[in-house]
Amino acid sequence: MISVLPLFWWIAPLSAIVALLIAFTFFRKLLRLPEGNETMIEIAGYVKEGAMAYLKQQYKVVAIVFGIIFILLSLMAFSGVQSIFVPFVFLSGGLWSAVSGYLGMKTATNASARTAAACQTSLNKGLTVSFRGGAIMGLVVVGFGLLDISIWFLVLNVIYDQNLFNVAAPIIAKLGHSELTPTIIESIAFQKAKLVTISNTMLTYAMGASVMALFARVGGGIFTKAADVGADLVGKVEAGIPEDSPKNPATIADNVGDNVGDVAGMGADLYESYCGSILAATALGASIAINSSSMGIGNIIIPMVVAAIGIICSLIGIFFIRTKEGATQKQLLHSLLIGTSLSAILVLASVATLAMTGIISWGLFGSVSVGLIAGFIIGQATEYYTSDTFSPTQKISESCKEGPATNILSGISTGMISTGIPVITIVIGIMLSFAFTGGFGDITKGIYGIAFAAIGMLSTLGIQLATDAFGPIADNAGGNAEMAGLPGEVREKTDALDSLGNTTAATGKGFAIGSAALTALALIAAYLDTIKQWLSNIAGEGIHYIGNIGFTNGAITAKNMINIDALTIEQLVYIFQINIINPKFLCGIFIGSMATFVFCALTISAVSKAAAAMVNEVRRQFREIKGILEGSAKPDYAQCVSISTTGSLKAMILPSTLAISIPIIVGLLFHIPGVLGLLTGTLTTGFTLAIMLNNAGGAWDNAKKYIEAGNGGGKGSDSHKAAVIGDTVGDPFKDTSGPSLNILIKLMTIVSIVFAGVILKYGLYF
Amino acid sequence: MISVLPLFWWIAPLSAIVALLIAFTFFRKLLRLPEGNETMIEIAGYVKEGAMAYLKQQYKVVAIVFGIIFILLSLMAFSGVQSIFVPFVFLSGGLWSAVSGYLGMKTATNASARTAAACQTSLNKGLTVSFRGGAIMGLVVVGFGLLDISIWFLVLNVIYDQNLFNVAAPIIAKLGHSELTPTIIESIAFQKAKLVTISNTMLTYAMGASVMALFARVGGGIFTKAADVGADLVGKVEAGIPEDSPKNPATIADNVGDNVGDVAGMGADLYESYCGSILAATALGASIAINSSSMGIGNIIIPMVVAAIGIICSLIGIFFIRTKEGATQKQLLHSLLIGTSLSAILVLASVATLAMTGIISWGLFGSVSVGLIAGFIIGQATEYYTSDTFSPTQKISESCKEGPATNILSGISTGMISTGIPVITIVIGIMLSFAFTGGFGDITKGIYGIAFAAIGMLSTLGIQLATDAFGPIADNAGGNAEMAGLPGEVREKTDALDSLGNTTAATGKGFAIGSAALTALALIAAYLDTIKQWLSNIAGEGIHYIGNIGFTNGAITAKNMINIDALTIEQLVYIFQINIINPKFLCGIFIGSMATFVFCALTISAVSKAAAAMVNEVRRQFREIKGILEGSAKPDYAQCVSISTTGSLKAMILPSTLAISIPIIVGLLFHIPGVLGLLTGTLTTGFTLAIMLNNAGGAWDNAKKYIEAGNGGGKGSDSHKAAVIGDTVGDPFKDTSGPSLNILIKLMTIVSIVFAGVILKYGLYF
Repeated sequence: MISVLPLFWWIAPLSAIVALLIAFTFFRKLLRLPEGNETMIEIAGYVKEGAMAYLKQQYKVVAIVFGIIFILLSLMAFSGVQSIFVPFVFLSGGLWSAVSGYLGMKTATNASARTAAACQTSLNKGLTVSFRGGAIMGLVVVGFGLLDISIWFLVLNVIYDQNLFNVAAPIIAKLGHSELTPTIIESIAFQKAKLVTISNTMLTYAMGASVMALFARVGGGIFTKAADVGADLVGKVEAGIPEDSPKNPATIADNVGDNVGDVAGMGADLYESYCGSILAATALGASIAINSSSMGIGNIIIPMVVAAIGIICSLIGIFFIRTKEGATQKQLLHSLLIGTSLSAILVLASVATLAMTGIISWGLFGSVSVGLIAGFIIGQATEYYTSDTFSPTQKISESCKEGPATNILSGISTGMISTGIPVITIVIGIMLSFAFTGGFGDITKGIYGIAFAAIGMLSTLGIQLATDAFGPIADNAGGNAEMAGLPGEVREKTDALDSLGNTTAATGKGFAIGSAALTALALIAAYLDTIKQWLSNIAGEGIHYIGNIGFTNGAITAKNMINIDALTIEQLVYIFQINIINPKFLCGIFIGSMATFVFCALTISAVSKAAAAMVNEVRRQFREIKGILEGSAKPDYAQCVSISTTGSLKAMILPSTLAISIPIIVGLLFHIPGVLGLLTGTLTTGFTLAIMLNNAGGAWDNAKKYIEAGNGGGKGSDSHKAAVIGDTVGDPFKDTSGPSLNILIKLMTIVSIVFAGVILKYGLYF
Repeated sequence: MISVLPLFWWIAPLSAIVALLIAFTFFRKLLRLPEGNETMIEIAGYVKEGAMAYLKQQYKVVAIVFGIIFILLSLMAFSGVQSIFVPFVFLSGGLWSAVSGYLGMKTATNASARTAAACQTSLNKGLTVSFRGGAIMGLVVVGFGLLDISIWFLVLNVIYDQNLFNVAAPIIAKLGHSELTPTIIESIAFQKAKLVTISNTMLTYAMGASVMALFARVGGGIFTKAADVGADLVGKVEAGIPEDSPKNPATIADNVGDNVGDVAGMGADLYESYCGSILAATALGASIAINSSSMGIGNIIIPMVVAAIGIICSLIGIFFIRTKEGATQKQLLHSLLIGTSLSAILVLASVATLAMTGIISWGLFGSVSVGLIAGFIIGQATEYYTSDTFSPTQKISESCKEGPATNILSGISTGMISTGIPVITIVIGIMLSFAFTGGFGDITKGIYGIAFAAIGMLSTLGIQLATDAFGPIADNAGGNAEMAGLPGEVREKTDALDSLGNTTAATGKGFAIGSAALTALALIAAYLDTIKQWLSNIAGEGIHYIGNIGFTNGAITAKNMINIDALTIEQLVYIFQINIINPKFLCGIFIGSMATFVFCALTISAVSKAAAAMVNEVRRQFREIKGILEGSAKPDYAQCVSISTTGSLKAMILPSTLAISIPIIVGLLFHIPGVLGLLTGTLTTGFTLAIMLNNAGGAWDNAKKYIEAGNGGGKGSDSHKAAVIGDTVGDPFKDTSGPSLNILIKLMTIVSIVFAGVILKYGLYF
């Protein structure tokens, strides 16, 4: 049976279950807290309703897409270019991502009024409530992520060990036997072959999560920014009413947007990153196991174990975060930093223990450390470029004096220059984690190290996401307080929390994009591995490949040319000429770079379009519903929510479809080298562009806040007007296009992996 | 002697001399035309003075940089990692680029008042004068470009054939002889080895031109945009005086800027592109000649011959451009189109004749055609996205109704989406020109085809540049007419010419970036070839390289491993593992992508800084010099010119130094794979980003003009104000950062080529 799995593997599902149980306890405790007065409950009710209505609509659209891909994958399974489990694994990836998003949003919408209510008594209580709300989100994401992976791993293991549905037959045949006996099951050869098959199948889980994440990020991102821009442009600028005023018809939509974009969208994004990093490492681990006798099955299990350690350490960190009453923002930030640092140190200590006991190599410990440190540096760099306590953002706010054009130019150049540190950090991180695990001797091991850097970076995701998701909760709490007409001191407290949330959100975005780059790199290697699998599967069917082994050219079948099962990743790269002088590879990079820009164009213009619709609707309500501005009539909040919903759902289709179809089209035309070029181009340009967009947007936002805080003119000054324009331009940059690129990078890679068999069988080869 | 050179080679220097002679005749005719009344002459004098003052200062700074690089190259020549001719070839590349720029600008500054004067009588005369002015620029650039290359080619041939300074000794020794006899000189083996050495040395000419071009583009780009933004922000927006009003202190600086940026900058840029494309093809031709017995010395000469054909066909086209009085803008454009199309068709016919007579292959004819057609498509796509007769720009102007933020967002998303067609065109162009010349059998031949696509695209540069450079002349003519207070109908005529110039400028930018991509690709292949040369030179000196030939790993010297002289480009790529799974290559791509963004950030913020200084100066003059606005006092034009000069010269140092030093630093740390990654990343991201910046800027500019023409509010409306903000943001995009990327892409490649020996000898190898 599954006796071959080491006992310590069970830490993975167990820690996941513990995380979910604690999340559940937090949630029950949260619900028991007072939600404030009637108005507060009513307002929170609108937001809840709007958010759920949106989510329902979004899931409906996504369900259709999942249905289509499910049918496609089933057809592929029938025609032998995918495993029969793949369609189901794919579906479950989307499903559990959706469940995590749903639960996170349910928590967030329930937590906001309660945070406002808690802020009526004390800041500490406010922090605790909002942070616990965020913690639920964080724990749900990592809990479900690791649990789902563990369950599939276990289930597929049992299915293969029992040879249910005759699935183990090809492996048994390869080993030269006719039936599965207990001796064969216990044999290392069987277990290795089985685990390679399983880990490759499970990569489809990441595809499900990725597709879901793209829709959630793009859809949510368009929703939130359309509502935000609409509310700001007509409400704040034209009608001159304050932020979150109940007189603004778009204000509920704006608050709903924070939930569907920043909570559900980001949750789905990080769920995908988290699962992706573990699954990529697992697949690479299987590849190492099959190719080398010196490293065993442990390689496949260790990624899950390290993730489990991360969950436990995050839990400890979460319980350590508290602050004293009357804390300054610096002290609040400090208390969060203590929690996250504690988690990180505990992870390092635990992984070091694994290395000392010989369960993992010191090289892997090095890679995990590199990941954690790189994540920290990227986060700090993000803060430096986007926080108004540092000179770049202050300079942007100063440039507002010369008008909006200068503000836009400084924001863009700050965003562009801010790509320097993260790229250098990632480059050093890649080189070190590659070298630590012996990559310069064996490339697969090196890339396994890179995958572990990603796991290291995301190991403390439980607490990272908690510090991230509490931002929108605090933001919504502020909105609730404003609309319910609570005293100014409450709003001040929620504002302090909100501002803190902006800083942690910036750091969180750094982690998200950094881990995306490392995971994508690992997935590219996993792609090559998958190619090998499919080459082996279809080489017998008369598919011919022209290679230039031994520096001779000629038409020879891959099967004849070399023993495919013993093929190394270097040989594969050589056979398919995935190098600088292959025009297909180069053209792939060009297309990848271009696809990134086009994808951003589509998401940015989607926000513009949806925002324009919102602007018109708000203007219409001011015009047609008499008495809104005097406070004697209530605006039609629901109509605004519905406009943002329709706008974002329509607009998310095209970019998402492009992301899924481009790798397939490029593959069919330019084969494997084209696909790898495409992935390389998307990864490198996407990484750089995402950082530029995130940081420019963040810096504009905070430059505006800096002016609002009374620097260089203050609210209402010409500088402030210029700053508001920058902020509006930055909104889709930082909350729609930028973060969506994280997912795009990985989704394209995973789609390539899943469709590898199709490309090998049907792609043009010249 | 040089008897081995086929007689038809002489068409290259001869056609170049003819072009220069005709340019000289045009210039003398131009000077004989009336320059208008006294005020016009005075104003033109200011512009001339300012432009020459700037150019003098710029050349001073550049001379220091050239001095430093000259010393560096001399040291390299002494330590045996470069040829002894290299420092001189480098210097001359910079020198002749500077001469072309100087002459172009001298012409342009002399032509503007004359164009205004001619427009007093008729539009046709105005077109003739301004277009002849542009034609001088075009002919000077292609004339000097091809002449200089021909002269160096001839001189080096003579030096080697005579074995002056004992330079041919290594070749003679390699051939197994002790001295140079007439028989050896006439032998194909000697000629081949000699031509490889010569063509590699001559690539340094492109480096000289490239360094000069970068400084001219960046410096000129900063100058022109600082002056433009300064003039607009304070003059037009704050003081409310019309464009080109003599009351505006920055107006002369603005007109000077058009000359130093759009004439001298663009001239140097295209001089570099032109020389680069010919030299890259020559080097690749030499590589084909040495590796294959089937293709001969003709491969090295053909690039120059095709370029010569292009010059002659451009001359014919130039004489065909004329228009009838009262022509509409469409008719004007039509007459230009007839000239350029005629030239293109003549080039194709002539090259087809070469193919029919067997001098070149039909494959090469195919590549030249692909280049010409791709250039045309990219130009058309640029026009589609940036001209106000099409929907993208019209939509941007509509978005101005919702304010500046929406305008910025639509401009950026239009710029981003406009990368689609050019990238797809270049991808198809690469694949076709590669395939036509048999690249799928022999990679070098395929890349030779790509280099020919670049030559094809630039073959009609003489006339293309004429249609391009006449724009700023017409623009300046308008300024002159305005300042001299000529009747409105004159300004109307110059405006018609200016508007036409904007369209042709957009098309010209498409050509510039398209040819940059193809040339850079050819240069990357030339880089690999250079590596081979240096490997051969230094392998005997105990430099060890670890390769994995035959799928075994181990420390073996390159010399032992394989016969370096017979090494193919594929083998080189294999030995240095320049492929997707080498982390150094991947990290190089990351760095290249980042470097592009950082370079843009530096140039954009340089414009902002210089513009801010200009804004302050104009405000100061309005404040301190009483009576400027009433017209009773004259502003201090010279001070504004001097501020733009200082600002741009200071600001051009950092980005230019970065561009030169990054390839060397990356090479020293990450060796050949890192450098190739860097070049790939800069090429792909730079190409895409440049198109985005060019087109976003162009579209904003024309969206503003569309509104000014009375659409959607007209001048002075809120929409117009929003449009002006977009235009200001777009100015550094389209005239500084975007075009500088063309040069960055190629400069980095050429620097890598020149420093290849240094990297091989001193770079870290692990």
